[in-house]
Amino acid sequence: MESAATVQPLNHQLSFLFPTKLIRTKASPCRWPSKPATSHSTRLYCQKMYVPGFGEASPEAKAAKNLHNFFTYIAVRIVAAQLQSYNPEAYEELMEFLGRHSLNDGDKFCANLMRESSRHKGLALRILEVRTAYCKNDFEWDNLKRLSSKMVTEANTKLMRDYVLETSHAESEK
Amino acid sequence: MESAATVQPLNHQLSFLFPTKLIRTKASPCRWPSKPATSHSTRLYCQKMYVPGFGEASPEAKAAKNLHNFFTYIAVRIVAAQLQSYNPEAYEELMEFLGRHSLNDGDKFCANLMRESSRHKGLALRILEVRTAYCKNDFEWDNLKRLSSKMVTEANTKLMRDYVLETSHAESEK
Repeated sequence: MESAATVQPLNHQLSFLFPTKLIRTKASPCRWPSKPATSHSTRLYCQKMYVPGFGEASPEAKAAKNLHNFFTYIAVRIVAAQLQSYNPEAYEELMEFLGRHSLNDGDKFCANLMRESSRHKGLALRILEVRTAYCKNDFEWDNLKRLSSKMVTEANTKLMRDYVLETSHAESEK
Repeated sequence: MESAATVQPLNHQLSFLFPTKLIRTKASPCRWPSKPATSHSTRLYCQKMYVPGFGEASPEAKAAKNLHNFFTYIAVRIVAAQLQSYNPEAYEELMEFLGRHSLNDGDKFCANLMRESSRHKGLALRILEVRTAYCKNDFEWDNLKRLSSKMVTEANTKLMRDYVLETSHAESEK
């Protein structure tokens, strides 16, 4: 936060007053300056907005951590669907284990699954393989970017439209 | 899940028995067949693993929804850091509102913020702008992909190494 305090461009205030068009905060410092830079050089080389509170990590690292757990969840679903058809016993074992352990922390889940029994260890190793393959081959990263972009545009439009409809309705009732 | 039941390739069983090398499930059907395809044509054109349970949506859409809320969270932090330096009053108002409302659902948070007061509406519009700009310009998508890939490889190695260390230690104690 102290970095944000060093630069106070006037256009922040303008963008606050006229928020229909965002004025980019060119003066905001980088998250990771490659060397101790003066305020002037930061101003020259970094075009990104300052994101506080991530310390040594980055928003990308935090998002990757979340996706990591998501991929484990997907891998468990893939393996379960495959087992269901040809190995009902293993499927039942996996489901029973799922009922007892949370999938919120994917790595912890896999570590516990490995230590349950030798059969569970086989399942855990397979889940590890599937999540790697899914992350590296199957997951559509371009699609994720496209969908996120679309979602943010549509959500903003919806929020503003709903607000305008609501307020104009309220005013017309007066 | 019914789609998984239609194909039972032998290599699933092989990959279960020898899970050190994943055998790709070429026979698994696509998530979104562009037309009602026969089992044969699906087998020909889709190389991806079948992911059950996402219905009309996709894992990418679910991940995008999560990222959407994450971007709102980031935008709130960015705006708060900017306000803190030049507009302490607005900063206090935003912080006070944050204390009363959850940021888990970003859109709901913005909708509530818009309806709080006209000053809060200005803040909300600014948050909407910042999250769009962050998503489309600042967020490093390539970095996310790289970090996720690295994370899944490292986590798998760590899980297997920890397991081997633990079991070999236990055996050497006998």
